[in-house]
This record gives sequence, C-alpha cells and structure tokens, in this order.
Amino acid sequence: MEKRVMTVERMEALTDGLFTIAMTLLVLTIDSPRKCDILPGDALHHFLRAQWMEILNYGISFILLATFWAMHHQQFHYIRHTDKLHIWINNFFLMFIALVPFTTSLVGDYPGDWMTELYFALNMFVLGVLLLFNWVYSTGGARLTDGQLDRHVIDRGILGSLVIPLVSVAALSIQLVRPIMATYAYLLIPAFLYFFRIEQRENSL
Amino acid sequence: MEKRVMTVERMEALTDGLFTIAMTLLVLTIDSPRKCDILPGDALHHFLRAQWMEILNYGISFILLATFWAMHHQQFHYIRHTDKLHIWINNFFLMFIALVPFTTSLVGDYPGDWMTELYFALNMFVLGVLLLFNWVYSTGGARLTDGQLDRHVIDRGILGSLVIPLVSVAALSIQLVRPIMATYAYLLIPAFLYFFRIEQRENSL
Amino acid sequence: MEKRVMTVERMEALTDGLFTIAMTLLVLTIDSPRKCDILPGDALHHFLRAQWMEILNYGISFILLATFWAMHHQQFHYIRHTDKLHIWINNFFLMFIALVPFTTSLVGDYPGDWMTELYFALNMFVLGVLLLFNWVYSTGGARLTDGQLDRHVIDRGILGSLVIPLVSVAALSIQLVRPIMATYAYLLIPAFLYFFRIEQRENSL
Amino acid sequence: MEKRVMTVERMEALTDGLFTIAMTLLVLTIDSPRKCDILPGDALHHFLRAQWMEILNYGISFILLATFWAMHHQQFHYIRHTDKLHIWINNFFLMFIALVPFTTSLVGDYPGDWMTELYFALNMFVLGVLLLFNWVYSTGGARLTDGQLDRHVIDRGILGSLVIPLVSVAALSIQLVRPIMATYAYLLIPAFLYFFRIEQRENSL
Repeated sequence: MEKRVMTVERMEALTDGLFTIAMTLLVLTIDSPRKCDILPGDALHHFLRAQWMEILNYGISFILLATFWAMHHQQFHYIRHTDKLHIWINNFFLMFIALVPFTTSLVGDYPGDWMTELYFALNMFVLGVLLLFNWVYSTGGARLTDGQLDRHVIDRGILGSLVIPLVSVAALSIQLVRPIMATYAYLLIPAFLYFFRIEQRENSL
Repeated sequence: MEKRVMTVERMEALTDGLFTIAMTLLVLTIDSPRKCDILPGDALHHFLRAQWMEILNYGISFILLATFWAMHHQQFHYIRHTDKLHIWINNFFLMFIALVPFTTSLVGDYPGDWMTELYFALNMFVLGVLLLFNWVYSTGGARLTDGQLDRHVIDRGILGSLVIPLVSVAALSIQLVRPIMATYAYLLIPAFLYFFRIEQRENSL
Repeated sequence: MEKRVMTVERMEALTDGLFTIAMTLLVLTIDSPRKCDILPGDALHHFLRAQWMEILNYGISFILLATFWAMHHQQFHYIRHTDKLHIWINNFFLMFIALVPFTTSLVGDYPGDWMTELYFALNMFVLGVLLLFNWVYSTGGARLTDGQLDRHVIDRGILGSLVIPLVSVAALSIQLVRPIMATYAYLLIPAFLYFFRIEQRENSL
Repeated sequence: MEKRVMTVERMEALTDGLFTIAMTLLVLTIDSPRKCDILPGDALHHFLRAQWMEILNYGISFILLATFWAMHHQQFHYIRHTDKLHIWINNFFLMFIALVPFTTSLVGDYPGDWMTELYFALNMFVLGVLLLFNWVYSTGGARLTDGQLDRHVIDRGILGSLVIPLVSVAALSIQLVRPIMATYAYLLIPAFLYFFRIEQRENSL
C-alpha cells in the first residue's frame, strides 16, 4: 500500500478542516451575556437588541469564508503538484483564514470604527492577494498544473481573486463616508462571483 | 486520478465536520466557575447547583444537533447532484447550525425569558425551514435526484422537516403559559422522528 | 457509486471527530492570566505556579480521552451493524465525552472539593456504563456482530468497560480520605488496560 | 470489507485533526477587546496598538505548528507499523501540541517575562524530544519500518528533530540578554529546515 506524502490532496484536507473549524468558531464572536453580569429582564433585552450588529457580522463572515473555501477549491481543481513555496503560500493563506474570527469580533463589537474596519479590510486584502499569488504562481508556465491552461481560465481565476482586494479597498473608502455601511460592501464578493459566474467552471458540478 | 470538484460528497464532508465541531463547542455554553471569582466551599456548591439548567440545555441541544445531522444525511441519501442555489441553501443551513451554541447559551443562562426563548425558537424554526426547502427544491421535478422518487418518500421527508418549525411554534406557545417548560418541548422532535419512524428508510442501516 | 447510509463507519467518523475536538478543547480548561487583570512580575509568577494542578488535570483528562477512544474503536472492531437504539447509545456516549472539558475544568480549578470530584466521577462513571451497555447490547445474541464472538472476547470487553465505573467509585472513596489524591486514581484506568493487555486483541496492531 | 484496526493510518488521521484544531484555536490567544470594558475611540485604538505582540506570536506559533505537522508526516512516511509504546509516544506528542495555544497565550500576553518564555520553551523542547524519541524508537533496528533505512535518512531525521530542543535552549539564553527577542528565535526552526532541506525527501512531493 502506497503511503501518503505531502501532496495536493493533503493540503486540501488540511484546508477543509481549518475552514470548517474557523466557520464554527465564528459563533464565539457573538458575546454571550453572562448570568453574573447581566440580570434577566430589561437589562438582558437591551443587551440582546444591541447585539444585532454582531449577529449580522457573524453571518457576513460565514458567507465570506464559504466563498473563499469555494474559490480555494476551484484553484486546486487545476493544481496537480506542489512545491515548498506553494505549501507556504497555502500555510499563510490558512493563517489569515484562522484570523477571521478575531477581525470579525472587532468589527462586530465596534462597528464603524476606522481601526477595526482597517483590521478587517487588511485581513480580507491579504487573503485575496494570497489567493491571487497562489493562482499566478501555480499556473505561470504551467508550473504546478498538468499542461498549460486555457488563457481565459487563467484570466478568470485572476479576476476572481482580484475581486477580494478591490472590494476591501472599496469598503475602506465607504467607511470614510458612511462608517456603518462598510461591512455590507463585502457581500459584493460572493454576489460578484455568483452573478458573473466567475467561480464556476463550465462542466463541473 | 480524478480530482474532486464541488460535489454532493464534498458538501456532506463539510456538513459532517461542522456538526461535529458545533456539538463539541456546546460544552462552552456551560459556564465554568472561575477560580478568581468564586471561592471553594458553599459559594462554589451553590453555583454548581444553580447550573443544572445549563447542563440540561446542553443535553437537549446535543440531542437536537444529532437529530438534525441524521435528517440531513437522510435527505442527502437521495440527492445525487447539486447546483449553486443548492450549495447556498446548505451554507445557510450550516450557518444556523453553527449558531446553536450561542442560542443554547442564551436559554441555558436565562431560562424562561421570552426573548431568549424566541431566539432559540427562531434558530430551530429557520433550520427546519431550510431543511424543508432543501428537500422540496432537490426532489421537485427530480431536480437533484436520480429519477423521480416515490411520492411517499417525498411526503415523509416533508413531514419530517415540518416537525421542526411546528414544534418551535408550539414551544413558543408553551413559553407564554409555563415559561420553564418550553425547552423540554423540543425533545418532541427526536421523539416524533424516533417513534413514527419518519427518519428511517425501510431497507437502510 | 454507492451512497453512504448511516452505517457503523459513519458513526466511527463522527466519534473520531468529536474525540479529537474534545481533546484539543481541553486546553481551554487551563485558565490564561489576562493581561488586564494580572500584572507581570510576581503576581504573574504566583499565578502560574498555582496553576500546576490545572495543567496536571489537563494531562490526565487527555490520557483518559485517548484511552476511551482506543476502547471505543476496539469495541467497534467487532461491530458490523447498527440500529436505532445503538445509534443513540453512541450519541449519549459522545454527549458525555464532549462534557469532559467542563468537568476537567471543575476539578482543575477546585481540586479536592467533593462536589467537583463528584461531577468528574459521575462523568467517568456514565462513560464506563455506556461503553459497557454498548458492548453488551452489540454482542448479546450476536445482535450487531458477524456471528457469535468467543466467550473470552466478550468477557474481556466487559471487564475492560467495567474498569471505568469501578475506578470512578474508588476515586470517590479516596476523595473522602485524601481529597487531593482522587484525581490520580483515574490513571489506574489506562494503567490497568495497558498492563493487563485487556484492550489489546492478540493479532492486531 | 476489512474493518480498520489501530494502525498507522489511524494515528495519522487523529494527528491531522488535532493539528488543524490547535492551529485554529490559536486565534483565541489574541484577546478581543470586550465592548463592555473598552470604549470605542482612543481607548480601543490604544488597546489594538498594544496587541501587535499577540498577533505576532499567533503568527509564529502557527508557523511552528505547520512545521511540526510537516515533520511528523515525514517521519510517518517511513513508519509502517506501530506498537503500544509507539501509540503513547504519539499521544503524548499530541498532548503537547494541544498545549501550544496555552503557552502561546502566555508569551503573547507577557512577552519578555522569563517564566512565560520558560513555559513556551519547555513546550517546544518536549515536542522536539518526543519527535526525536519517535524517530529513534521507530527506526532503531528497523523496529517499525519496512527494512533498514539508509543511514543518512535516519541521521537527517535525527538532525531535524534535534533542531527544536536546540533552538529552545538558544531562545532561553537569548531571553536572558534580550528578553523581547526570544520569541523570534523560534523562527530558526522552519528557516533551518527550509534552507538546509532537512525536511525534504529527494523524490517526494
């Protein structure tokens, strides 16, 4: 029986696991009222009503992680080999995925604050850049793929990855004008990929 | 070797992982007394005795998650294909599964409060509706199944999914009369499915 | 391609996942000093020195979970079928496995207190009883096995499962005399299984 | 169908899961400002600026865990059998992997303190020793491998494992002179393995 070495399949398994855990840990970004601190009745109800922003941010980050997960898998659909640099690109990508619960907690607790929005935007920006780097590095000169990919497949992958840093910058700009609206801007990422079918291969699914 | 694309199997793997983590994270809904805040002896024992409600809610939510997991798998037993909308139905289903530790923590800490009970009921209600939507969408016109299913298989799936929102509404009604009893009502979901064998296929297991 | 139904393999996968997460969550039972509450220097060093009991309990619970995991797999080595009651025995077993981080946190924070020791002992006791019930139910009349097992295989499984509740009772008795020693007693479980080779099949590994 | 017993594959699966969860839990070592305690505006910005040390330590520990994961897999590439002692070496290795979020939290919150640095160094030291022990035990007399390995394969494995305890001692020494620099020293571990190609088999990947 052939033993497994550090292959693309292994990287995908690590990635799947890490995404799943990060998505579930997001729930910890919604502060629970503690029995000892907050009395039942009006104080509790006031606390819960004030928490809609956190719950909304939970939902948005969950959708973003699900989207990144789909994008990652799409890129790895074409990637057949790996090398040391490629493994570390992926490791750094995962490092910033695992960071999402922290930056989500910041924007959920302090919506509209420029510094928390900056942290969240930086997190998304870096994720987009790493996805882009992963794609360009893997497909350039067919480095890690089986043969040269179609030009338009490569271009669509680049376009798809570019959406994330572009939207991050847009969100930061919106934040200057309408602080509270910045968070919603990130929903443009899944919307763009969904409607323009950039994330979809023709013959898959 | 065939590379994996976004298939039903992949969605099941993501779902399995997320359920397992959500079930284990439930334990965090039981507040631990902190050494620094609560002294050993009478204060501790009083704290622990007051915690039975949280432990009970932990148990109930664990049973509910195990039940939903079984129901999800049963539906996916018949689902052989997927599409974009179907993937997002599943993603939203998972978003509300990952939310269960939060709503459980609310009803565990503030049992009998109408707002916490409402949050928990809403969480269950949405999960039921998404399960129902998943089933109706997948089986309607054999959209994602291999051929048309027997009418009674479809009907049982609908009935099984309907139990959850119905019980959620019932629990909310009970809450108006006997606040503290609302939580127990949810045990009707696994009981109903267990005794009426709605969740069981004849020839499986 | 055959779709998966609720089989023994599925139960094993759920069990593996839940054990792994519970083992990793154990680390949260070791209180971290919070920057805001505890100043660097003497206060910090005093805090850390006082924490050895928690670290020790972390280690013991980790070993116990690893042991239960091995025992569970050993029983499932012989189990080839499942039924509704069997699935729920396993679900309840997992519910008490996921509870271990909570009871570990109690005995780690309040070592030698009779009530925390009782909670931990009850947790272990129930786990042992459920393992025993799982084994007796599955092997009785070859209900879930392929053919009747050797009498001595069945007996060793019973003996192995019985060790846990017996040691739990012993630990509680020790607690009455030497409160602080109770925790160490649980190490008798892996020791017993290791040295008497009860957990080992002859021809495996 | 052959049922799985406690094999090397099973140990690898447990290890993969535990590593993934520990890597994701690391994010909890970055303290989130709590809405109730810290007001938006200057107080928040001051808090966030003071948190760079924690974020940096998160990154370093993430890289270290990814490195240990690769080293573990490399050793298990050659290991084809297991025995009781070997299983427990692995269990203890995992126990100290799961401890990393705790020791990371210590050095992140109290950088430059000799006791927190000692805890972190001890954690790394023990991990290195257990990796070394795992390798020497498995390859000695071809105990758990298929045939005798090349002398230089064994030697490189030993050298690779030795790097960890050596760097831990070096970091502790640096801590005496330049407290704040100690943490960075651990980056020598992946750097050493990366540049000297000790972690790479010639014909793999």
